[in-house]
Amino acid sequence: MKHIRVIAFDADDTLWINEPYFREAEEKFCEMIKEYLPKEEAYRELFKTEVNNLPLYGYGVKGFTLSMIEAIMNITEMKGDLHLVEQAMAIGREILGKPVTLLDGVEHTLKLLNGDYRIVMATKGDLLDQERKLLKSGLAKHFHHIEIMSNKHKEDYQKLIRHLDCQPSEFLMVGNSLKSDIVPVLQAGGSAVHVPYHTTWEHETIDYQIEHENYFQVENLGELIPMLKGENCLTDGEA
Amino acid sequence: MKHIRVIAFDADDTLWINEPYFREAEEKFCEMIKEYLPKEEAYRELFKTEVNNLPLYGYGVKGFTLSMIEAIMNITEMKGDLHLVEQAMAIGREILGKPVTLLDGVEHTLKLLNGDYRIVMATKGDLLDQERKLLKSGLAKHFHHIEIMSNKHKEDYQKLIRHLDCQPSEFLMVGNSLKSDIVPVLQAGGSAVHVPYHTTWEHETIDYQIEHENYFQVENLGELIPMLKGENCLTDGEA
Repeated sequence: MKHIRVIAFDADDTLWINEPYFREAEEKFCEMIKEYLPKEEAYRELFKTEVNNLPLYGYGVKGFTLSMIEAIMNITEMKGDLHLVEQAMAIGREILGKPVTLLDGVEHTLKLLNGDYRIVMATKGDLLDQERKLLKSGLAKHFHHIEIMSNKHKEDYQKLIRHLDCQPSEFLMVGNSLKSDIVPVLQAGGSAVHVPYHTTWEHETIDYQIEHENYFQVENLGELIPMLKGENCLTDGEA
Repeated sequence: MKHIRVIAFDADDTLWINEPYFREAEEKFCEMIKEYLPKEEAYRELFKTEVNNLPLYGYGVKGFTLSMIEAIMNITEMKGDLHLVEQAMAIGREILGKPVTLLDGVEHTLKLLNGDYRIVMATKGDLLDQERKLLKSGLAKHFHHIEIMSNKHKEDYQKLIRHLDCQPSEFLMVGNSLKSDIVPVLQAGGSAVHVPYHTTWEHETIDYQIEHENYFQVENLGELIPMLKGENCLTDGEA
């Protein structure tokens, strides 16, 4: 890994807890609407609405809230009342007010990497919400650059790599989503380290194995530095 | 203006039409809710809700839509039905689907400035929506850098200027909002050109006169180049 000059970190569920808050929100949504539709079906309806709305609303809490409201209209066939909508909006606001809890090894790792590498944060989501989380996290000082992206496709990474003025071969992405943090980076010619998180949004999963010479896995961020030093480095073939 | 190296343009109502779509949306909102509250009062309620929600939701269509829904709950005292909510969501989606119509002189001006200056777009709003408008506008090729900002305070411009690797004295902002595009830029040590637009959101207005040696005004973007060349340059004192 001697060629790496820039390390980009995904934020949600890589640096701090995020997805469990959405799982909790979905659970509350399904509970409040259960007299109209059994929970599992309500979850399917909400998921379908969210995914349909991604091109329109993008990622983040505001789009999620609007999708909950749209799902209420569909599930109740317009017979629900404004109290359901009020509850959905409260569920959304609750996510926005959640504390930012760092994952194990994050602060230590960022601190140690700084100096040896240019450290970047590259995350999807609502602009204001991600900025607020970064502020709450206290991690801003570790980053040379913050990129909040509307999407994480191959082209988006190519743009980011150009903007960072480095070669794809010098760029390493670290994240929990195989679909957003790993596959498109490998396609763009970069390297990628997968740090799995116990909960992943269904839309972020992939149903195939990745085999690539620039793809690596660690169990947690604490393993990143030994990996970069060439110790304890599991490629997919060895894992 | 010989010291200027970077020119940043606001987007909404500086490069393309935006605010009239929101005025139209507010008009539709007030019309649909008028059996509960006279139009003018409904507008005040919506405006109040929007401004209250700015720290939470930020700028853009999704936050505006959520504010319309919240205003429906307040105005109808929770007695309205989901059809009102459905209409509010449709009003929001309609804004997102609007064409991007360039203002007079924009393309010509950007084309001529390129080469002589580093040209940047610096705008507030929803990340995905602003990217979509930029794409629709066909203007992306003129910009060296695109900055979508959650806020446009003095500190935000200071961060942008540092990021662009220039001195405040080399930075010129062009925009239609005195509050967001002019005052904070002057405070940050930059120069600013006001290009008024016929409609400005109430929250973007200020109630005092600006007097500053680095503050300029033009009637439309076509006047920017003569102004930069030192012809036809109105400072506030002369205007």
